[in-house]
Amino acid sequence: MNLSDILAQIRAKDPFYSSGRILSSMVTTPNSVAVKAFYMFIDTNAGDYGVFKNLAKMEKYVIRKLSQILGCVSNECRGYIVSGGSEANFLSLWLLRNLALKMKNIRKPEIIVSPTVHYSILKAANALNIRVVYSKLNKHLKMDATSIQNLITKRTIAIVANAGSTELGFVDDLNSISKIAYENEVPIHVDAAYGGFILPFIKTVNFQGFRLESVYTITADPHKTLFTPVPSGGFFVKNRKILKYIRFAPKYLSRKPSETLTGTRSGGAIASVYAILRFVGLREIARMHRKCYKLALDFYGKIKRTGKFKTFGKPETPIVCFKPFDTDSRELIKALRRRGWIIYRCPVVDGLRVVFMPHVTKDVIGEFLDDLLEIV
Amino acid sequence: MNLSDILAQIRAKDPFYSSGRILSSMVTTPNSVAVKAFYMFIDTNAGDYGVFKNLAKMEKYVIRKLSQILGCVSNECRGYIVSGGSEANFLSLWLLRNLALKMKNIRKPEIIVSPTVHYSILKAANALNIRVVYSKLNKHLKMDATSIQNLITKRTIAIVANAGSTELGFVDDLNSISKIAYENEVPIHVDAAYGGFILPFIKTVNFQGFRLESVYTITADPHKTLFTPVPSGGFFVKNRKILKYIRFAPKYLSRKPSETLTGTRSGGAIASVYAILRFVGLREIARMHRKCYKLALDFYGKIKRTGKFKTFGKPETPIVCFKPFDTDSRELIKALRRRGWIIYRCPVVDGLRVVFMPHVTKDVIGEFLDDLLEIV
Repeated sequence: MNLSDILAQIRAKDPFYSSGRILSSMVTTPNSVAVKAFYMFIDTNAGDYGVFKNLAKMEKYVIRKLSQILGCVSNECRGYIVSGGSEANFLSLWLLRNLALKMKNIRKPEIIVSPTVHYSILKAANALNIRVVYSKLNKHLKMDATSIQNLITKRTIAIVANAGSTELGFVDDLNSISKIAYENEVPIHVDAAYGGFILPFIKTVNFQGFRLESVYTITADPHKTLFTPVPSGGFFVKNRKILKYIRFAPKYLSRKPSETLTGTRSGGAIASVYAILRFVGLREIARMHRKCYKLALDFYGKIKRTGKFKTFGKPETPIVCFKPFDTDSRELIKALRRRGWIIYRCPVVDGLRVVFMPHVTKDVIGEFLDDLLEIV
Repeated sequence: MNLSDILAQIRAKDPFYSSGRILSSMVTTPNSVAVKAFYMFIDTNAGDYGVFKNLAKMEKYVIRKLSQILGCVSNECRGYIVSGGSEANFLSLWLLRNLALKMKNIRKPEIIVSPTVHYSILKAANALNIRVVYSKLNKHLKMDATSIQNLITKRTIAIVANAGSTELGFVDDLNSISKIAYENEVPIHVDAAYGGFILPFIKTVNFQGFRLESVYTITADPHKTLFTPVPSGGFFVKNRKILKYIRFAPKYLSRKPSETLTGTRSGGAIASVYAILRFVGLREIARMHRKCYKLALDFYGKIKRTGKFKTFGKPETPIVCFKPFDTDSRELIKALRRRGWIIYRCPVVDGLRVVFMPHVTKDVIGEFLDDLLEIV
């Protein structure tokens, strides 16, 4: 048996997204064009500007294009293709913490987050010595604006809002939050790791992103919804000037300093995003997202009509969370697992959730619905 | 022109390691077996234990084997394949900071580092609110033990030692440092990002690694010296119990919590390390490192004999740092660049350095020496 066969055999011990039965993931089989590009650039290091100058240009191009999708209307937006949403969230909070220390001398920083906050924000806050304050959820399961207003103190360095929360897929009301943030001179970090490259295409909500005055930083991950390989997360800032608060120069390099946590970085990741933009195109990406969203809406309607599940409002991204009236959610997840379905929880409402990535096709979701109704 | 050709054309705008003329890098063309494995697992996510259970087992296997190379003699060593040495250094300091807070109530933490410390440690210290204290260098350009002893305070949470410093390739005297650390009950973090998988094979120094009582954490990067693709860094702890200080559980997953900064992680990286261990083998890795080291020693001897350069002692890893007597180092680097050589500085001695990675062959280094002597 040759090496490829051996490796294929080992790989086959874990499931493939192409089976469709992974309903839990915000990652899917990477696009073949993106994989090709990753492979062609696998020997490059984006952290080494002295050697890979063209790669650095390619990253600039990619970041400019992606920033525009996220609402950037100036030439001042910057960012990096990083290891993932967790690093992007970390970099954003690190930057906003250092900015607040420098500009406002805030020494005991706090952030206001949603109860549906991604846990990477909590990790980052622990590392960065930032206190986490939870806002309430309103009846739409979004951050409650009055609650945010009440929680702002002189120590608040940022409000962290979701644009497509991991649990529910809902988008916090950035317009209202932005007004409060502006009045109180507090920056907003938008965790759009999942929704950043969906919302501008499916237009379920008017996602303003960087167009909002107080939005300083955004996380939006190509390896989730631009279908590039892991690791290709996205870290974006509206104004390049604030990057200096996390800028460090290696003494042994004479070139550009780093503004990421990592040093050596995957050049393949950058090339794969480039390939999506240049050779696949945003029209195709938009088509894929609209298709996923249509399936999600359809599923939402069907689930609701069965009368057997509590639902939580019309999906804003291709995620549907639901809670069985007569069965325990955890037990249901186990029963589904026995039938080969991998599905995770949306704990804030004690439900379960389906993420409609491109591998979750119409046929697959039909089978899933049959199994689901058979069990409950 | 098809996509591969277009991508190849873009890739060709930056240099290739295979040209040999990149003398600055600790990364080289990745091993083809490792690349194959990365590619076969490119659709996997090591952060998602619920889906990729076999991948998690593979990572355990890989970490166990690598820990043994780093001196682990128990079953308690753990770790992760992470985005790189910078993340591994960050995770180590984060862990040791949280440990010191919990066990000793240290609220204003300090670390003692070498003047040749890698800048990722400084980045991490900034993010983690750790004060950095610099030890002196002894005449061998290693951390001075007496100086370390004098700098230890009640706030010292770790001593950070180099095993193969980025600038000089030298290995700090871990035995002496370990004695001081033990007597003062201070943990050691060893930044062996570069040397961790070289020293046990070339045996220029008796690298004890985890065998030393006070060594709690080690950084050692497969993507440097096991020739796997970026991003595959290595984060190792001697005792799995202390991992809890950086453990965070995502609420929506029911599985194992994360002990890394990242959430979604490259499964390809893990598979590539696995492939090196299983299908290339440590004997071949050792052979490659010995070859590189032999070339480095040979170059060191030749440089010394010219009488035109100051040298800084026999290399302990395949890095040679030297300083021209009659030319400015920065000017020399520029002149070499004009002839197509990419070489970086060793600023602590105001010299320049050659890193002997496998792409720096005997022929290449002969040409380099000719050019170098022609210029000075």
